[in-house]
Amino acid sequence: MQNDEQEIRELVSRWMAASKAGDVDTVLSLMADDVVFLVPGQPVMRRADFASKARAQSGRDAPQIDGSSEIQEIKVLGEWAFMWTRLTVVMTPPNGAQPVRRAGHTLTILKKQDGRWVIARDANLLAPA
Amino acid sequence: MQNDEQEIRELVSRWMAASKAGDVDTVLSLMADDVVFLVPGQPVMRRADFASKARAQSGRDAPQIDGSSEIQEIKVLGEWAFMWTRLTVVMTPPNGAQPVRRAGHTLTILKKQDGRWVIARDANLLAPA
Repeated sequence: MQNDEQEIRELVSRWMAASKAGDVDTVLSLMADDVVFLVPGQPVMRRADFASKARAQSGRDAPQIDGSSEIQEIKVLGEWAFMWTRLTVVMTPPNGAQPVRRAGHTLTILKKQDGRWVIARDANLLAPA
Repeated sequence: MQNDEQEIRELVSRWMAASKAGDVDTVLSLMADDVVFLVPGQPVMRRADFASKARAQSGRDAPQIDGSSEIQEIKVLGEWAFMWTRLTVVMTPPNGAQPVRRAGHTLTILKKQDGRWVIARDANLLAPA
């Protein structure tokens, strides 16, 4: 279980780094096939929705996304786990506009898929900070 | 597991009914001792925070709270479970002001405490609708 917790921490680090780098393929490799993303005031987002949104935001005109995640709790339940974090994300538009800072918590369900941990359900409670 | 799922559905029904009735003691009996509530733009709320906030809102001047919850998924993992729902809440102030309607998703971790299911971690993504 100690090892599972460490693997989940590494998953979070890889997620943050790949998001910052605009590496959509790596981000997609870190989520389950049946992943569900929940955010305030938006419809449910599944894997294909996430992919098309992320690809639309990548490229030369993409905002710079820089986040930091403080894990508050990880609980491993066999092949499943849950985690909640305190997350801060700063999005800097490419046109010199002011960076936008958002902060809040996340609550995430993870599962082991083909022997490695991936994100399965995710509630993202970020709000303007 | 079928039975666990049914018990979790009953927990949700009891929670909604007790919230509507302003029955704070019953609502508190449906959450774990170490419960964590996460909402957008707010600090983490624990059991004591929930209790004092709920008691402050109860009484004659309390808004009428009427909600409906559509459970989208329940997954039982032994003594733990997770669930996500589509929730709509209408708050009607006592002074004749317009009702406020909020809608969105919830992602909840549940656990068995003393043989019955209670809410352990809860992310509430309600936004003005």
